[in-house]
Amino acid sequence: MQLEFFFDFSSPFGYLASTQVERVAREHDATLLWKPFLLGALFKEIGTPLVPIAEIPEAKRKYVLEDMHRWAEHWGVPLVFPSAFPLRTVKPLRMTIAAPDALRAPLVHRLMSLCWVDDGDPDDDDQLRACCEEVGVDGGLVEATSRPEIKAMLKANTDEAVRRGVPGVPTFFVGDLMFWGQDRLGFVERALDGWHPRKG
Amino acid sequence: MQLEFFFDFSSPFGYLASTQVERVAREHDATLLWKPFLLGALFKEIGTPLVPIAEIPEAKRKYVLEDMHRWAEHWGVPLVFPSAFPLRTVKPLRMTIAAPDALRAPLVHRLMSLCWVDDGDPDDDDQLRACCEEVGVDGGLVEATSRPEIKAMLKANTDEAVRRGVPGVPTFFVGDLMFWGQDRLGFVERALDGWHPRKG
Repeated sequence: MQLEFFFDFSSPFGYLASTQVERVAREHDATLLWKPFLLGALFKEIGTPLVPIAEIPEAKRKYVLEDMHRWAEHWGVPLVFPSAFPLRTVKPLRMTIAAPDALRAPLVHRLMSLCWVDDGDPDDDDQLRACCEEVGVDGGLVEATSRPEIKAMLKANTDEAVRRGVPGVPTFFVGDLMFWGQDRLGFVERALDGWHPRKG
Repeated sequence: MQLEFFFDFSSPFGYLASTQVERVAREHDATLLWKPFLLGALFKEIGTPLVPIAEIPEAKRKYVLEDMHRWAEHWGVPLVFPSAFPLRTVKPLRMTIAAPDALRAPLVHRLMSLCWVDDGDPDDDDQLRACCEEVGVDGGLVEATSRPEIKAMLKANTDEAVRRGVPGVPTFFVGDLMFWGQDRLGFVERALDGWHPRKG
């Protein structure tokens, strides 16, 4: 059984999911597939308007922020909302694709922390290189982000997400069942155990 | 301990919550307070745009509908999306307020079923009267919806929801802790058991 994890570093809910997804896969004997894609490009393609934070009704904005921190507490992980938002994440996405298979997971975690714990800048080459070095990846990986075949692979993942009906981040697939949101990991676990909900 | 349940008949997620909220209150020795309010008026007040279903990106619309049916299956309750949507729910809201205390809960459930199981019209007086009779409430309750003091009480609930930062339906309060969404009932249960998450 495979667990496909579609994510971008730009979403705090994607970060929260990234802290749990390996555990979920392991506990249910599933093979995890990391599927980095560009959320902004998907939103543009499927017609999701990008509402600036300041235009979200205050009640909703305050609640969503509170909820996000409750989930971080629930999972027992740190979360610091970045002082500059939205984040430019095309470089870490491409680095994830170009990373050696064996170091992809630790690199994703380090880059997620840069974005959602350290208040770092995921578009800054020096910070990205430092992340690589911390997890034992050659810092030259940052340069790989300008290679045409790496760009093409990220675009292919984004196109795949659009084609398969991904509405946002994080999105999980268990076979043909799609689940959207880190708050649906309970459903994901049931699907990995064989649950197949009726079509609505 | 009190569990306050802010709801409108206009939301399928409010319906799903209404099927569980008494059980949750009972299992955690909480007193349930039904808080009907007019969601459309709150949205207007807090600045939530009313996006017509047809303008929601297809990927999101399809997923949310699917997710809604998965939750209905999860809770073991029927759900039929109404053929006419959005629903006009001001009459059942006012009836909930005007109902005798002892029959409020069964009346809410019958009116929710009218909206979310029977594909009924919650603005139709005959259908509303039939609901009353089925649960042993005098059908004259439908006329109470035009009484100024009943209208004022619904408006007061809506104003209270706005004042307390309610972002949508369903919303629960356990003391000063607010939870939005029937998919947060797990958090509600923990709050009833004494969980007090740190402020984000």
